[in-house]
Amino acid sequence: GDQGKMKKTEAEKVEDEAKAFTLKTPKGTKDYDEKDMAVREQIFSKITSIFKRHGAITIDTPVFELKEILSGKYGEDSKLIYDLEDQGGEKCSLRYDLTVPFARYLAENGVSNMKRYHIAKVYRRDQPAMNRGRMREFYQCDFDIAGTYDQMVPDAEAVRVMSEILTSLDIGSFTIKINHRRILDGMFEVCGVPADKIRTISSAVDKLDKMTWADVKKEMVEEKGLSPEVADRIGEYVKLKGSRELCDKLDADAKLSGNANAKAGIDDMRVLLRYLEIFNVLPRVSFDLSLARGLDYYTGVIYEAVVNSSPSVLNGEPVGVGSVAAGGRYDDLVGMFSGNKKIPCVGISIGVERVFTIISGQRDRSTIKSNATEVYVIGLGEGFLQERMQICAQLWDAGVKAEYMFKKKPRNLQVQFEVCDKEQIPLAIIVGKQEVDNGVVKIRKMVKDNVDSVDKEVTVERSSLVESVQKLLKAI
Amino acid sequence: GDQGKMKKTEAEKVEDEAKAFTLKTPKGTKDYDEKDMAVREQIFSKITSIFKRHGAITIDTPVFELKEILSGKYGEDSKLIYDLEDQGGEKCSLRYDLTVPFARYLAENGVSNMKRYHIAKVYRRDQPAMNRGRMREFYQCDFDIAGTYDQMVPDAEAVRVMSEILTSLDIGSFTIKINHRRILDGMFEVCGVPADKIRTISSAVDKLDKMTWADVKKEMVEEKGLSPEVADRIGEYVKLKGSRELCDKLDADAKLSGNANAKAGIDDMRVLLRYLEIFNVLPRVSFDLSLARGLDYYTGVIYEAVVNSSPSVLNGEPVGVGSVAAGGRYDDLVGMFSGNKKIPCVGISIGVERVFTIISGQRDRSTIKSNATEVYVIGLGEGFLQERMQICAQLWDAGVKAEYMFKKKPRNLQVQFEVCDKEQIPLAIIVGKQEVDNGVVKIRKMVKDNVDSVDKEVTVERSSLVESVQKLLKAI
Repeated sequence: GDQGKMKKTEAEKVEDEAKAFTLKTPKGTKDYDEKDMAVREQIFSKITSIFKRHGAITIDTPVFELKEILSGKYGEDSKLIYDLEDQGGEKCSLRYDLTVPFARYLAENGVSNMKRYHIAKVYRRDQPAMNRGRMREFYQCDFDIAGTYDQMVPDAEAVRVMSEILTSLDIGSFTIKINHRRILDGMFEVCGVPADKIRTISSAVDKLDKMTWADVKKEMVEEKGLSPEVADRIGEYVKLKGSRELCDKLDADAKLSGNANAKAGIDDMRVLLRYLEIFNVLPRVSFDLSLARGLDYYTGVIYEAVVNSSPSVLNGEPVGVGSVAAGGRYDDLVGMFSGNKKIPCVGISIGVERVFTIISGQRDRSTIKSNATEVYVIGLGEGFLQERMQICAQLWDAGVKAEYMFKKKPRNLQVQFEVCDKEQIPLAIIVGKQEVDNGVVKIRKMVKDNVDSVDKEVTVERSSLVESVQKLLKAI
Repeated sequence: GDQGKMKKTEAEKVEDEAKAFTLKTPKGTKDYDEKDMAVREQIFSKITSIFKRHGAITIDTPVFELKEILSGKYGEDSKLIYDLEDQGGEKCSLRYDLTVPFARYLAENGVSNMKRYHIAKVYRRDQPAMNRGRMREFYQCDFDIAGTYDQMVPDAEAVRVMSEILTSLDIGSFTIKINHRRILDGMFEVCGVPADKIRTISSAVDKLDKMTWADVKKEMVEEKGLSPEVADRIGEYVKLKGSRELCDKLDADAKLSGNANAKAGIDDMRVLLRYLEIFNVLPRVSFDLSLARGLDYYTGVIYEAVVNSSPSVLNGEPVGVGSVAAGGRYDDLVGMFSGNKKIPCVGISIGVERVFTIISGQRDRSTIKSNATEVYVIGLGEGFLQERMQICAQLWDAGVKAEYMFKKKPRNLQVQFEVCDKEQIPLAIIVGKQEVDNGVVKIRKMVKDNVDSVDKEVTVERSSLVESVQKLLKAI
């Protein structure tokens, strides 16, 4: 636990680069040091425990897939897929997300229902924006329910899982926006959008979280050739947001509710919002007709969670973190692999990199404990290395997390206490000549406050050492 | 938790392949299903807890590195490195192990000491032998201590960590073979091996765990041009194995102890074996002059653990699992990146894929619980979906792991009980008309034995439901 670091200056790094080796990670990737990892593991542990609370199992798929498996799944983003060099043999690509490998897994193994989570890295040759958490290698954290079930039942659980996770992560208040692909499609039909323009107009609507309506309308009319009247009709709909009452309002819109797509979508939303009320997540949900979501493969309910607070700050710059979770229903993706057999799916993906950015921004790095060490065994005078080793072996045998300095004769007591402070180790065991002669050790609580409490240090027999340590640790 | 599977027959898989998509993972890679993952996570959790017991922190590096970082590190095995396609930009390769990225990390960040573990996948374009656990994508599980410390102190802790881990994994009794590169070098010098043949003769010695001495000698003489007399002298040395007394025996060999390399190595071994005695691992250690280890970068102590039992059986075939852990001291690797600054390192790598093969072979798959679900909420008669949802929300709010069937009206009670059995869920909560009318639920212990114990089923108020469930779960 006595990691010593001397981070290099930028000048030294430039000097390094002048050498034969360029000492860096590839563009768009980064190392995570021990403090980053402590934060990341806390996040993953919270998320995993909630996935498990809902009965999810986990599977693992390879980091690369046959190239043809990924082909034709990501539209124009396919250019961002990393290919492996053709070194003879199969053509492979690094996975772009965890959803397509999941669909391949279901189809290949003939699995007709599964509730699974998968936390793993995915790869995109995107223009990196590391400050905003957009990288070429990043974690995805997915939960999906595959299977043929009753209307909106798994969908409601997916939203409940999203809400439980965002609540547990301490990232502030959030809103889960929900909409339905069939309501959007029906709305576009009713407004008079030509069938061949529906996907591209949907993409324009998707930008409403970053652009004003005036700019989105301009894009629809000037770039995408929509008539201004049709755009204005869309403009009226996408303003609408609310909760259960919005279902009634849309039903009362005779034109909209006369459209089969819209009607089916409104019916789904009515059922879903009722279930979300039972699940106590309705107050966090906004039925929002402006939510469109980019991905082509969604076929039903779609959702996206945003934090309500103002942008956080990283390295002195404000950072818009955008959505922290998203998902939806995709009933046709598995069928692209299995041919005849359709396996309906609904899923969520937690934006863990954004969550990491938010939480890292809140934490003072010096307070993050990156090791788990409970006891540091300190030698006085001549160092008593073999006694320290014996004591550590006793502690390890009992499962106590213990370390000692790898020196026969540490410079002095102070340098060993400093390790305890730096590594936030709560207990020190001290052995010197006197202790060895008397068959005892001192145990000292490494309290940071300057209160010189009476019970700060106790002397115990070597034979009852482990017991005493365990008792003290329990009390911390 | 009600994952239903109908594994495809081979004929169906062949039919799938006739389609546009080849539904398979790339050669040498595999999916891990939920039962594999449950076993794997148990293994990782045990190993991680021991790494943490010794104060190790963890870092993470990208799955690919700049190609030049990996170049010149793996000798003739460099041909097994996976390269990413050159899609414009930097040339990158998938990591081949976790040691070189660790050395790059230390040098890049000017970290002079660190005790770290890293569990992650590495990639080798090797000829796969899946049955023997040799794959193109596989986990490594490394623990390394970097820093300038006193003689053999970190080395002893590395061996102690290896021993603690192998003991905790229930893979049967094992032996940790230890040797020293400088003893080997000195031995070859004393025997009369020409300096330019030392590495290749060392590689031949490394095969003694798979080949007889006669065959190894043949390779030395016929393929590598060593004189038979020199080979015979080596043959006398590599027979030697023992414990602390072997240090004295080697010291008494005037020719060997007159060699500076051998002398230094014997001195290290004497100190190490004393420390291992203090750490209570000496009985598991064999000082074995036939251990050579392939990797070029070792500079000091080397070690390798083997299980003592006869080969295990997988798919009806005997499987030699070989070494289950290995490692050694590599004092010069970081210097290949940092130029001037030498950072001595010692490390171990646990062969988790082999451990997985051994443990999977021991377990009956049907007994492996892959989900964490504690309670299944069952509806009678009309199904009572909304009541089941309410009950689940109550349980989830309290952190209880609960599931229910995603049907408004499940077919019958039996099909829901079957889920409990299949998924090994210990408690069922049952709601029917009578329970709803009376504001109660039934809680049933899903015991497998046929004893009809009196307390198998209790009826409790809805208001005290969570409390009752938590009490019952604690008692399980």
